[in-house]
Amino acid sequence: MTKMSKQEHILIIGAGLCGSLLALRMAQRGYKVTLIERRPDLREVHQDAGRSINLALSDRGLKGIKLVGLEDRVRELCIPMNGRMLHDKESNTLFSPYSGRTDEFINSISRTDLNIMLLNAADEYDTLQVLFNQSCSDVDLKNATATFVDYHTKEEQTIAADIILGTDGAGSAVRKSMYMSRDFLFSFSQDYLGHGYKELTFPPAEDGGYRTEKNALHIWPRGRDMIIALPNLDGSFTVTLFIDYEDAPDSFASLNSPEAITEYFTRQFPDAVPMMPDLVKDYEENPVGPLGTIKCHPWNAFGKVCIMGDAAHAIVPFYGQGMNASFEDVVVFDETLDKFGDQGWEKVFKEFEKTRKPDTDAIADLAVDNFHEMKEHTAHPMFQEKRKLETAFEKEFPEEYYSKYSLVTFKEEIGYREAMIRGRAQNKAILNLLDDGVLPGTLSRKQQLEAVLKATNDILHDDAVLQNL
Amino acid sequence: MTKMSKQEHILIIGAGLCGSLLALRMAQRGYKVTLIERRPDLREVHQDAGRSINLALSDRGLKGIKLVGLEDRVRELCIPMNGRMLHDKESNTLFSPYSGRTDEFINSISRTDLNIMLLNAADEYDTLQVLFNQSCSDVDLKNATATFVDYHTKEEQTIAADIILGTDGAGSAVRKSMYMSRDFLFSFSQDYLGHGYKELTFPPAEDGGYRTEKNALHIWPRGRDMIIALPNLDGSFTVTLFIDYEDAPDSFASLNSPEAITEYFTRQFPDAVPMMPDLVKDYEENPVGPLGTIKCHPWNAFGKVCIMGDAAHAIVPFYGQGMNASFEDVVVFDETLDKFGDQGWEKVFKEFEKTRKPDTDAIADLAVDNFHEMKEHTAHPMFQEKRKLETAFEKEFPEEYYSKYSLVTFKEEIGYREAMIRGRAQNKAILNLLDDGVLPGTLSRKQQLEAVLKATNDILHDDAVLQNL
Repeated sequence: MTKMSKQEHILIIGAGLCGSLLALRMAQRGYKVTLIERRPDLREVHQDAGRSINLALSDRGLKGIKLVGLEDRVRELCIPMNGRMLHDKESNTLFSPYSGRTDEFINSISRTDLNIMLLNAADEYDTLQVLFNQSCSDVDLKNATATFVDYHTKEEQTIAADIILGTDGAGSAVRKSMYMSRDFLFSFSQDYLGHGYKELTFPPAEDGGYRTEKNALHIWPRGRDMIIALPNLDGSFTVTLFIDYEDAPDSFASLNSPEAITEYFTRQFPDAVPMMPDLVKDYEENPVGPLGTIKCHPWNAFGKVCIMGDAAHAIVPFYGQGMNASFEDVVVFDETLDKFGDQGWEKVFKEFEKTRKPDTDAIADLAVDNFHEMKEHTAHPMFQEKRKLETAFEKEFPEEYYSKYSLVTFKEEIGYREAMIRGRAQNKAILNLLDDGVLPGTLSRKQQLEAVLKATNDILHDDAVLQNL
Repeated sequence: MTKMSKQEHILIIGAGLCGSLLALRMAQRGYKVTLIERRPDLREVHQDAGRSINLALSDRGLKGIKLVGLEDRVRELCIPMNGRMLHDKESNTLFSPYSGRTDEFINSISRTDLNIMLLNAADEYDTLQVLFNQSCSDVDLKNATATFVDYHTKEEQTIAADIILGTDGAGSAVRKSMYMSRDFLFSFSQDYLGHGYKELTFPPAEDGGYRTEKNALHIWPRGRDMIIALPNLDGSFTVTLFIDYEDAPDSFASLNSPEAITEYFTRQFPDAVPMMPDLVKDYEENPVGPLGTIKCHPWNAFGKVCIMGDAAHAIVPFYGQGMNASFEDVVVFDETLDKFGDQGWEKVFKEFEKTRKPDTDAIADLAVDNFHEMKEHTAHPMFQEKRKLETAFEKEFPEEYYSKYSLVTFKEEIGYREAMIRGRAQNKAILNLLDDGVLPGTLSRKQQLEAVLKATNDILHDDAVLQNL
């Protein structure tokens, strides 16, 4: 096994959010880095007018941003969202905070703006070269070389490196080369929901302001389908419709005419329709996207190639953790290099996956849980009662209680898996206590908290007996 | 949607156990059937001497056999196994019955003998044609045609049918054509355990008899690795070693010399070694097989092609339910035809998957659970205490108690999913009651049973509150 030296050359395939952050960090550590991307340079190619895909940046993602020293620059791109604004069918709204602690919120941020900021920061390193319009056509896993075709000239080039890191997203060419390899067993799953998504928009108001509350993530939960809206810096909101492809009372298949589209939105989301002057046009022009989860194992081949970010673990968007998980990958990879860097890349890659995969498996499952929570449970009285209780706990006992949402989103010092296990047990405890009627208002808040913590620990203990057998 | 008429032509790809049973049943229903197989005819090609892969046939599989009227012929091929014979490192044995009811046992049966019996039965139908040595190279999903290459002549032929049923096993060419289709989203997973398997043998004793107890499934559980043995009609046992590929104290990677093999078996399975006169030779000659689970969705394409058996849901062998699940598929498909046959094939295929997939997903997960149970838990005192209690319940209250194993294996009138949910809750209930010391011997058996049933129902109720939100 070769020792790593700082002169080593790292080829990073995929210059999206994860690859750009990773390239920056590897350059900061002293490696020679080539970052290569299939698409054109975001800074040169005109983006679709009025389309702005935004994401929710929260504490785990910010850890990655802090690691490369860009926190101040990123803060300028952020719009804080302090909670969910729920819109019912009668156009009533209910604001449900994400946390009882006032310093815990998530941030709406433009994917494009953030990526551009990371690429600009990358340009400041002489040892980091970025190439665009290069489509990966082949990866030689054993020798850490990869071949690319130039989009314009169609010319091929092969780049050799000491190691290759694949951050080329859910459709990863690097992962595909591992899937096709006959030299090792590659576990792989792609799981699609029966729902797809379509992006729509609330444009800015006539006066340039926001048409609805700026500092919230808006949800119109309708049980089987929903729309959500996140704010953009320009006063607009990006709206996303989530609905069945087919075989449902309302579906992409059934919304097949301007009349059907208008009738559906007016019936289901009456207060949103006036905010969408271009609803039918947007609906007809914008594509339907799939919602899939990807898991795989192993993440490395021959100690030469390793995948991370969406390439290794693509998740559905319902926890707002896709980018956050990918940025946290970079933090964990960086820590793994600190710990095992002197034992060679294969050891680093294996330890990285061993540490990280239980957490990315967990956030994948949590994100599917949250699909059902958002479209359905948020509208349920018992769920709302649970959230009120949890927010009160977090406000009155900020050191003693973290809801599942807070554990996953804000408690960056524990992993997703621990957050999932504790968060699910808490939810089960509270819902069963509410169902049994043993959390009456006559109890003090402190007594309620103690009842919930005791029931949670009982659940965790009972599960452990089975698991420790 | 076209109505189905009895003159329709069904092309069944794959003449293994599932395809042969399915073809028989479809011929009995009056369809014209072509059954086509990549491999040579088992009845003509000499089998490897001394190698006999055996399977455990139990109630769910027998339902399929009864459906086609072959129960009497199959019974002649069966060797009843009434329980597990556990062998510890000191060569002590402990017999643990599969059930407290004496009419509940599983059967060791030769895969080859059973397949030949089914093919012979198929030959009795003029409307059922069987072709061998035809490798499927392409499936046209929209038009229900498929192309095959003859192994000997290399000639291609394309067969058109009204529908195609893919029963071509875990490596299914039909499923691959669905995976590669760009016309619909295909969810798919292949999950490999870190363990592989290798088949060995206990030959018959000098006098032609069995070297150890005939009517048992033998297990040598060692925590991380194990061997098992199932009896054959000729006096031999087929032995299977399950062990890590690598990165473990003992692994296929570390057993790399005759000395290492002998040392390992002598240390771990001392009473088995004298029964394996050809241990080192068998070990070195026989291949290592992978242990994988395959799930996918949808099982049908365009109402023209449908997969079932291992092609749709391959599972690891630890519950002895792979063949049983495939045969039960045929029973469920037959029932679905009864119910929905007048509404066209697409409806039949969709209803078949809707009914069946929750159960095949469950047995896939149960089979992985049982891997840990067999190699590890069976040797654990608390697990053995649980099994003793359950066997006593089943003996004294045969109508009131079914263990998880009995629910899965013998209670054919409920599905695998219901068996899983109830069986897991029961296990959790008993283990927690044992752990809390609240099942003392001072309780009558009836009181113990009532405590277990109450704790089980509490667990099921608490889980339901969360699920019904």
